[in-house]
Amino acid sequence: MASKQFFKTLRLIPQKYSNDTRGLHSCSYRYVVNSNYQQCTFLTARQSKSKIVSALHPSKAYYGTQPSSSKITRGPYSRLEAVDIAVFTGILGKARVINGAEDDLDGFNVDWLKSVRGNAQIVLKPNTTEEVSQIMQHCHSRNLAVVPQGGNTGLNGGCIAIFDEVVISTSLMNQVINLDELTGVLTCQSGCVLYTLDEHVKERGFVMPLDLGAKESCQIGGNLSTNAGGLRVLRYGSLHATVLGIEAVLADGTILDCMSTMKKDNTGYDLKHLFIGSEGTLGILTKVAIQCPIKPNSINLAFLGLDSYSKVLETYQKARNDLGEILSACEYIDNETMKCAEENMNLKAPISSYPYYMMIETAGSNAVHDEDKLNSFLEDSMKLNLVTDGTAIWSTREKLADAMLKDGYFLIFDFSVPLEIFEKFVQDTRAYLGASVKRVTGFGHLGDGNIHLNITMEKFNPDVLAKVEPFVYQWVANHKGSISAEHGIGSKKRHLIHHSKSGESIKIMKQIKKLLDPKNIMNPYKVLPE
Amino acid sequence: MASKQFFKTLRLIPQKYSNDTRGLHSCSYRYVVNSNYQQCTFLTARQSKSKIVSALHPSKAYYGTQPSSSKITRGPYSRLEAVDIAVFTGILGKARVINGAEDDLDGFNVDWLKSVRGNAQIVLKPNTTEEVSQIMQHCHSRNLAVVPQGGNTGLNGGCIAIFDEVVISTSLMNQVINLDELTGVLTCQSGCVLYTLDEHVKERGFVMPLDLGAKESCQIGGNLSTNAGGLRVLRYGSLHATVLGIEAVLADGTILDCMSTMKKDNTGYDLKHLFIGSEGTLGILTKVAIQCPIKPNSINLAFLGLDSYSKVLETYQKARNDLGEILSACEYIDNETMKCAEENMNLKAPISSYPYYMMIETAGSNAVHDEDKLNSFLEDSMKLNLVTDGTAIWSTREKLADAMLKDGYFLIFDFSVPLEIFEKFVQDTRAYLGASVKRVTGFGHLGDGNIHLNITMEKFNPDVLAKVEPFVYQWVANHKGSISAEHGIGSKKRHLIHHSKSGESIKIMKQIKKLLDPKNIMNPYKVLPE
Repeated sequence: MASKQFFKTLRLIPQKYSNDTRGLHSCSYRYVVNSNYQQCTFLTARQSKSKIVSALHPSKAYYGTQPSSSKITRGPYSRLEAVDIAVFTGILGKARVINGAEDDLDGFNVDWLKSVRGNAQIVLKPNTTEEVSQIMQHCHSRNLAVVPQGGNTGLNGGCIAIFDEVVISTSLMNQVINLDELTGVLTCQSGCVLYTLDEHVKERGFVMPLDLGAKESCQIGGNLSTNAGGLRVLRYGSLHATVLGIEAVLADGTILDCMSTMKKDNTGYDLKHLFIGSEGTLGILTKVAIQCPIKPNSINLAFLGLDSYSKVLETYQKARNDLGEILSACEYIDNETMKCAEENMNLKAPISSYPYYMMIETAGSNAVHDEDKLNSFLEDSMKLNLVTDGTAIWSTREKLADAMLKDGYFLIFDFSVPLEIFEKFVQDTRAYLGASVKRVTGFGHLGDGNIHLNITMEKFNPDVLAKVEPFVYQWVANHKGSISAEHGIGSKKRHLIHHSKSGESIKIMKQIKKLLDPKNIMNPYKVLPE
Repeated sequence: MASKQFFKTLRLIPQKYSNDTRGLHSCSYRYVVNSNYQQCTFLTARQSKSKIVSALHPSKAYYGTQPSSSKITRGPYSRLEAVDIAVFTGILGKARVINGAEDDLDGFNVDWLKSVRGNAQIVLKPNTTEEVSQIMQHCHSRNLAVVPQGGNTGLNGGCIAIFDEVVISTSLMNQVINLDELTGVLTCQSGCVLYTLDEHVKERGFVMPLDLGAKESCQIGGNLSTNAGGLRVLRYGSLHATVLGIEAVLADGTILDCMSTMKKDNTGYDLKHLFIGSEGTLGILTKVAIQCPIKPNSINLAFLGLDSYSKVLETYQKARNDLGEILSACEYIDNETMKCAEENMNLKAPISSYPYYMMIETAGSNAVHDEDKLNSFLEDSMKLNLVTDGTAIWSTREKLADAMLKDGYFLIFDFSVPLEIFEKFVQDTRAYLGASVKRVTGFGHLGDGNIHLNITMEKFNPDVLAKVEPFVYQWVANHKGSISAEHGIGSKKRHLIHHSKSGESIKIMKQIKKLLDPKNIMNPYKVLPE
């Protein structure tokens, strides 16, 4: 089991890399898959997270981090009636309308972190755009609020009802429409699971331009709605860079067709970008066209140990220059994070203990050239005393959040801050919180300036939260960072958006929302402040 | 002179490539800078275009391709009065308010193609965002229409007044604010010239993510406003991919600050994308933050001759697979285009005559690896009989439009169409037009699916235009292409936007326009249909 998943994580690695018991290179630095890794339990990131969360949060007690519905006033929406259920059943048939026992609805009313809980009384599962349109026409005329939901893997409560909103699940809208093998443009329904799409395009010589821990559950429509980041942003850019077209159903049931499959199209305002990252508040995504890059033939991974944060930054610059076009990920992990992974998950660093670690991935078309570049980079870095030790491994990175969770309760923050102060932020927060928490750690996508700040405690303590939040958000705002680099705003952060967006910007966002959804029935209580 | 500019065009090529009289490689195919090129006149693309246009269009006679103002009703705007001039002079001082002789205004009232002419009576040259804001506050209160203008290199009349709109030129807003050498993020004012920025960042190890023929005149604000494409889209994506932040002044003078320099920021609707490609109809861009890629150490160029269009497509696929991450441009030129360049510009193909040509550029971090990849690709392609002949050269591509102009009058169309039918489109158009025109040719950015269809005639003939336009736009619409891949809509194509955008999309664009500019004073008569 262990090694099976290990290989899965590393499945892009050429055959000769598959034997994790032998050295991969005979270089002077340890460029080898460390046998420690064989003793770890390798579950998929998504599975393991769910299991750990279930173990830690068996009850529904942990809703402390959200602004619970008790603090919000329900909007003036209609309440679900028998006539609505009859209409929905008329559109979808009985099997695709879920409105039975609470247990049936639980999977749609609780996020996987178990941090928020909704009270939706009905879940609808359309197959087609036209069905979504009919549903929305009815909801609009009846003034019923709705929540679009994809794989329910969001971290900020964006796809969970706050009160009794109608959940529209895209899970059954999972058809691949086309992959143009000449251009690499994939068109599909919005409910396709990311992992499934990645497998589909890989068989045809491409990869999806995004990859994230939740890939086995998350859906491409949800990815677009939150503008999900993940591990491939450094190489292929955000979804604003790779999405070519979208189709969306608006609040009144209008089908908005922006399904261009052309890479270049300068005809008027590019409306699709409004839907990327708006978390279902402007419409429900029903189709997507996305540019898939060519699948790399060769993937290499290096795990490095470093003595100082300034060396981390120097090594990043050197990696960018030396590895150039084959650099595909540059991740940072601090010692405190690694200690947590070791204590809680038996995930030892594959090298001895260092104050700082980096994981550098290359992906290219020519294995010989790529190894040559990586070897030169690593040899140089060691000669220059930038990097003290190195080995080849991936997969640790995806388990770090799990390790934090095992401390009892943890707050994960998703910030963009200038690279120079990435580490200082962790130190300042640690100094500020002192003994009131168990750990303050940092790791993240160094190449994208995107840090995950983590604060762990033995159990949830609202006093700590009250102390943490103003401090970290103000810190980020003071340094012109982003309070949500890749997880979105959802229901949890809407009162904080002013830390990253100007008053004028927020005003325009609200006007656009009103324009597209005058009755405010599309995913209310989310993203925009009251 | 000749060779000086030649080297300028090829300035990224390593030193050993600088001697254009000797072979660059000793491979069996001719991989050499052909001596023909030394006899050509090499001006910059921009200079040569201007000179040719001036020579061909000495009078103001050629305004046939635009919907002239006589067909449009002037909006209910105020007319410029002495009091307005006094206010503008109070804000800017006398030297930066141009309202004298017609000659002084001509450079702002005529586009460089001399295809459209405005009747602006005043040009304002602010230095700062605050000045732009004050100007707009006044124009808004007085109901004066305005046209933002950058380098005036647009092809669809987007930055030229239709009637007497006030021209706001960003030419003096040309300060670089910062280049973050750790991240490569450039922040600057919107009036910086693209070439100047490219030189600035190159000295510090980066390149601008876009490059186009007009680079010595066009400004980054204008580039963003038209979402300019050009030669680097294949590698770095469109401006939606690389722009991180913008600052804009809205119609009422509001300064909208979306100047994030963070690569990842998921906090609400990403408003900057509305301003990219909206051609100054929603606001005036005043500042830009853009992600600059690392400067490649090694650039290689290959000019290929091919026997059939299907081999062009196969070669493109092979280039994408074999050259992978170092492929930086893949351009297509048909025989008719090359003939035109030869007859009109003495620009011979550096290889003998073929039905089809391709120009393939690589840009990478390691010269040895890059040459190795390119050599393998070329050797394989020749062995497989895909490519019949090849040599190394650039610069031809930038002169092709000039050659067309020398036929007398030419129509250039900028379409995205599916790659498979790229060539058929040219053939169909040629068959349809028959002897009524001189030439129908095609060349373009194959790697981006973006063709330039060109129709030349000895002098402007409105009957031909009337015959051409419905045919080509319908053809593109029938094949789900874009009627403007990279040149925008401007004043020339707004009656055609429905060929590429749905009625619902256009309706929403109009609503957004109304939201941000209720008096419709920002660049009226442009982009959106009446």
